[in-house]
Amino acid sequence: MTSPPTALADSPVIAVVGAGAIGAYYGARLAQHGNAVHFLLRSDFDIVRQRGWTIKSTDGDFEISAGSAHFHRRAEEMPQADLVIVALKTTSNDQLAALISPLLKPGTAILTLQNGLGNEEQLATLFGPQRILGGVAFVCINRGEPGIIHHTAHGLIRLGEFDSSMGVWRAEQIAALFRESGVRCEAVGDLLTIRWQKLVWNIPFNGLGAVMDLTTDRLIATAAGTGLVENLMTEVIAIAKAEGVTMPDGMVSKQISNTREMGPYRTSMQIDRQQNRPLEVEAILGEPLRRGQAKGIKTPILEMVYHFAKVL
Amino acid sequence: MTSPPTALADSPVIAVVGAGAIGAYYGARLAQHGNAVHFLLRSDFDIVRQRGWTIKSTDGDFEISAGSAHFHRRAEEMPQADLVIVALKTTSNDQLAALISPLLKPGTAILTLQNGLGNEEQLATLFGPQRILGGVAFVCINRGEPGIIHHTAHGLIRLGEFDSSMGVWRAEQIAALFRESGVRCEAVGDLLTIRWQKLVWNIPFNGLGAVMDLTTDRLIATAAGTGLVENLMTEVIAIAKAEGVTMPDGMVSKQISNTREMGPYRTSMQIDRQQNRPLEVEAILGEPLRRGQAKGIKTPILEMVYHFAKVL
Repeated sequence: MTSPPTALADSPVIAVVGAGAIGAYYGARLAQHGNAVHFLLRSDFDIVRQRGWTIKSTDGDFEISAGSAHFHRRAEEMPQADLVIVALKTTSNDQLAALISPLLKPGTAILTLQNGLGNEEQLATLFGPQRILGGVAFVCINRGEPGIIHHTAHGLIRLGEFDSSMGVWRAEQIAALFRESGVRCEAVGDLLTIRWQKLVWNIPFNGLGAVMDLTTDRLIATAAGTGLVENLMTEVIAIAKAEGVTMPDGMVSKQISNTREMGPYRTSMQIDRQQNRPLEVEAILGEPLRRGQAKGIKTPILEMVYHFAKVL
Repeated sequence: MTSPPTALADSPVIAVVGAGAIGAYYGARLAQHGNAVHFLLRSDFDIVRQRGWTIKSTDGDFEISAGSAHFHRRAEEMPQADLVIVALKTTSNDQLAALISPLLKPGTAILTLQNGLGNEEQLATLFGPQRILGGVAFVCINRGEPGIIHHTAHGLIRLGEFDSSMGVWRAEQIAALFRESGVRCEAVGDLLTIRWQKLVWNIPFNGLGAVMDLTTDRLIATAAGTGLVENLMTEVIAIAKAEGVTMPDGMVSKQISNTREMGPYRTSMQIDRQQNRPLEVEAILGEPLRRGQAKGIKTPILEMVYHFAKVL
């Protein structure tokens, strides 16, 4: 029996580690609604401390200045938190221990909103599985100039415990915190399912999008492209099923038609490629590939996309 | 026994079908040295008839105006030729019959300098194998504005009979014609070998270069990229060997080191992709893939590059 998770404090101290678009946007939403939010920043520290965050959102623009949030350059200067939101790029996961350790006290919950697979496991290894929750953000968001975040569509977070035997009690508390801050949020009992459902979309569109430098609409503009994306999705679903995850029927065609409605979209991995930044190859492609290989699932397209992506 | 080929006339009439960079450059060289060259042009006809070709070459710039060559818009207006040089893009091979038939008389030789595999076969089916020769151009060349060709390095042509039982006698005659026009040229007895040797380079660098939109230097900038290129070259060599072609030992590492010396280079297929023009997918990737499949050779990387290229 695992012990039940600690209840979140009434006025929780929230730390946001990694202030890319995801960390900045959700952290700013929490700060906007009166929560005590501490951002750990690196490259943008000087500009953001001066000017704060500017969130240009289809739900209305707003700003979070030093009067309504706290900005830090070093984790050691931050208070211990009740909730740590991890939004670091997975290519910096080797820094998780150094950046998060100073923020922990007994009962601190750690929620990773990072991309791909394996982040909860890494955090669980470092800090114990009972602290760890994971969430999947369904949001169209990107960074413009330093300090400026463009939120163009959606925003839903689905989150759940890494150790599902702990129930959804703490996940519900955190989901309520987001909802009180104007963010659609659902607690789920089966984190692995939502991770894999997201991967069915992310692997083809991030993977092929980065490797071929094509936006989502161009990947499915031809029969050849649609077939390739569908076959890759089918490979991912086969791995998920081997991992014991249930996938809804008709998922492939539904994801294709949803993506068609989105119009041209550059995935984060394609943007990273274009801006010569490190790509989240291991979290989005490598780790799912290795899970499939461990189960003996044949994934020739995923394997090749992974090898191609490592060239970039 | 096949009958020996017809000797080339002393002052041969030469037709150049397809005046992209290759056709324009080699046709202009032949015209520069006093040969009667007739160019069949399509999109650039008006400009080239007015201004002629401007060849900007590392061997010295020169121009070929209407005073020193003939420019035609339609094959039906051209004289019958002693030698037809085919430099059409392979994506227009469905026009070979219409464009070449009017140029033929008994004994006309047809030399294709097109990319990839299968062009000689298509011409042989249309016009009989005894007319057909093939050549591989080792040249760095591209088109700038209409009528302007940039020749930046090399220029060697290796050419031979499609039907090797016809010997090298006619190939030697045509090679001499090129050499008299300042073009390095060698007649070879085994056309298939030089085609496959070129493919060992062309398939990875054109294929991956187009699919990933990467120049040659970036493809081999990382260990992952070099490994991918080497493995793809090894697949091509395996098909060539199954086709009965002898490949020199150490070919892969030699081609990699040669390519490193070239510096950044955009292959024709990468340029076609960037300019939204049709890609020579079937000649460079599809036909070699099908030859391997017919022989039961496993080529997982080539197969995937082909499928990816068809998306473009």
